[in-house]
Amino acid sequence: MTRIHFDILTLFPEMFQGFLHTSIIRKAHEKGLIETQIIDFRQFATDKHRIVDDAPYGGGDGMVLKPEPIFRAVEHLLKERSEPTEVILLSPQGEPYTQQKAQELASASHLILICGHYAGFDERIREHLVTKEISIGDYILTGGELPAMVLVDSISRLIPGVLGNRLSPKADSFTDGLLEYPQYTRPAEFRGYRVPDVLLSGNHQRIEQWRRRESLRRTWRRRPDLLRSASLSEEERRFLSQLKKEAPTKE
Amino acid sequence: MTRIHFDILTLFPEMFQGFLHTSIIRKAHEKGLIETQIIDFRQFATDKHRIVDDAPYGGGDGMVLKPEPIFRAVEHLLKERSEPTEVILLSPQGEPYTQQKAQELASASHLILICGHYAGFDERIREHLVTKEISIGDYILTGGELPAMVLVDSISRLIPGVLGNRLSPKADSFTDGLLEYPQYTRPAEFRGYRVPDVLLSGNHQRIEQWRRRESLRRTWRRRPDLLRSASLSEEERRFLSQLKKEAPTKE
Repeated sequence: MTRIHFDILTLFPEMFQGFLHTSIIRKAHEKGLIETQIIDFRQFATDKHRIVDDAPYGGGDGMVLKPEPIFRAVEHLLKERSEPTEVILLSPQGEPYTQQKAQELASASHLILICGHYAGFDERIREHLVTKEISIGDYILTGGELPAMVLVDSISRLIPGVLGNRLSPKADSFTDGLLEYPQYTRPAEFRGYRVPDVLLSGNHQRIEQWRRRESLRRTWRRRPDLLRSASLSEEERRFLSQLKKEAPTKE
Repeated sequence: MTRIHFDILTLFPEMFQGFLHTSIIRKAHEKGLIETQIIDFRQFATDKHRIVDDAPYGGGDGMVLKPEPIFRAVEHLLKERSEPTEVILLSPQGEPYTQQKAQELASASHLILICGHYAGFDERIREHLVTKEISIGDYILTGGELPAMVLVDSISRLIPGVLGNRLSPKADSFTDGLLEYPQYTRPAEFRGYRVPDVLLSGNHQRIEQWRRRESLRRTWRRRPDLLRSASLSEEERRFLSQLKKEAPTKE
């Protein structure tokens, strides 16, 4: 019944409290579609003071996470379960996370997510223990806890049954390689700003065409890099050439 | 004394509990360097049932956040404070967030972060209320709450005094445009895997050169896209040309 079991290794288990008990993630737990276990890997340190970090060889600022406690924690978790497991290190040096990677990971059954904190990991963790290293973006965070939550959230919502009927991942940005079209709801006029007439027309064919074109226009203006891998119809290619003539961007 | 005041508009205030009271963010609060206010914008809905979303004009799945409650909430917050304010919408359609943007925002004094949930925002919020729209990456999340935490974390740790003396944002990935070099700590040999000899040599000049080269090598292998904007010395350029000859990547 449970589709994905997440094991999350962290030094700050309390950081996950709000996240795990709210909204979609709470519902996914209640429906039994996901399980999450938060493990403080400090308990896998073998010395009296439960030390998990030490100064870097060669000098420098910050502390580096030692190999032993994380090796021992992961090996313990691997023994607990028989399914194939991805052991994922969250780090700014990992491969950039994308919606496509979320879709791939949504078919896994056991994911171990390792959250570092402050400075780096001993390189031997990276080389000899993990199967994937993922970065959620080109910026620096205090630790891997927020990235782990990003993975749990983006993956869980793709499991069938997690989102209700009124919500669907189908129309999301990136699912078809483009940014989403503009959305409007009531009132039709707000402080003098009106909803585009076409959306009030009831003509579904025209609405579809408008949405697809606005989606293309927005992607072209804001993220032309995404257009390289989008699959477009002949009509859409013509519309795009027209856009390029009207308003050339940096690409 | 407080350097940055964050106002966070959300429908799920409880999601922030673990995050705000842990680690660096807790310390930044205790030192008075940041303030955070979590505001449930449902309280700014004017109807009896405090409705904040409605069906999209033109049809389609999901619900769209109505303009009124968010306009009213932001206008209320703008009146509370006199400093210049950035009103930031967290959305997958925004400009990609980077360490450089974190550095720019770290010099702000008042940031309003608007978290959507489930489906989209009424377009008029985007067009007539916000000053910036930011995406933390090309993947879909249930809401803007995790992205708001990513901003608060990455910005707060850049405020002088937030990180202690033993930690420094200087050696981070991206600060000089490259990925970080490999780090090692004790033991020097772990399960047969040894720390590179140079790091045990005590020769600081050789260690520096090794680190800079490994940083270049890792960036070249994993993220050649970052090299376009990195500033490199003559010696580093020569090393990079050598790498390119040895192991061509997709670039």
